[in-house]
Parts: sequence; C-alpha cells; structure tokens
Amino acid sequence: MTDVITVVADLKAKPGKEEALRNAALALVEPTRKEQGCIQYDLHLHLTDPGRVVFFENWATVEDLNRHGQSPHLKAFGAMAADLVESRNVERFRRIA
Amino acid sequence: MTDVITVVADLKAKPGKEEALRNAALALVEPTRKEQGCIQYDLHLHLTDPGRVVFFENWATVEDLNRHGQSPHLKAFGAMAADLVESRNVERFRRIA
Repeated sequence: MTDVITVVADLKAKPGKEEALRNAALALVEPTRKEQGCIQYDLHLHLTDPGRVVFFENWATVEDLNRHGQSPHLKAFGAMAADLVESRNVERFRRIA
Repeated sequence: MTDVITVVADLKAKPGKEEALRNAALALVEPTRKEQGCIQYDLHLHLTDPGRVVFFENWATVEDLNRHGQSPHLKAFGAMAADLVESRNVERFRRIA
C-alpha cells in the first residue's frame, strides 16, 4: 500500500445549494470509479449537516490522482463549484494501517 | 448500505507527541477490525503534517459503533489521549454513493 494516496475532500454548500451540491457530487461517482488507479471513491453526507458532503478517495498513485484532477467530469464539477460551494477542505494522506 | 455509519476521526498530536500518538493509534487497528460490525477501519498519516492521524471507519450499525466506544482498547486509548492529543475532530456521515 506504500504508493496509495488517500484524499478526504470535505465540501460545504452555500445556503440553498445543498441539494444542488449533493447532485453534482453524486454525478462524479460513476465516471470517477472507472478511472485508472481509482481504488475507492465513496461519497458521504454529514449526519447532522445536510449541506456537507465528503468524498473518501483512495488512488493507486499520485499520478492517477493528478489525472483525475484533469478529467472532464471533475472540470465540469469545478466549473459549477463557485456557485455551489461555500468552503472546502481537501487533504491528502498516506494509509499506514 | 442504508444503516452503515461512517466516521472520520482526525487527531492532531501535541508537539513532541507525534510518534507516541501514531503508535497509540496503530495499536487500535487490529483489535478494532475484529469487532462486531467493523467494515473498514483504516489509519492514515497526513502527507505533510506528521502530527496528524486520521481514522476512516465504516460500521454496520450505530450500535456497533457505540460498542466500539466502550471497547477496552478504545478506553485505553482515551486514557492516553489527554497526554498526546492537542485537538480532535470526529464526525459522522452516511454514505450516499
């Protein structure tokens, strides 16, 4: 697992954009899971804050993750994000167990 | 997957306690994976902050998660945490895709 890179991407919707963000995030799941090097790409909704979605991602290599960043679906999401996302926190980790 | 509950537990070590926190966290992994209802329990180290560890957890039911909170290994960890942990952010999610 030494090369696997883990991403936790936490996005908070602007007020009134909760459902739109959720739908835009859901649309990423299937095309992303078909990408090269995608090991896990799960989408979650915060239990008490319906405006918060979190992706938990595992990628085989950092190159695969970088390619994901250039994918048509992620670029389309990025183009919508300015209208939907109030704040975001995207961090990278290395799995150690 | 409707009942599955996801936890992201983000812990930041006190200065000088980075390795001790990492070791205490590592010690949780094997006994926790043997617990009833534990679907996924992975431990990660932040790529650029060696004092930050993150557990990504999936539990079959909230009852399983609550039982985990009462386990001997988690109680032992909790007893050490005051000395090791500067801040923590533990949040619960529902997987939607």
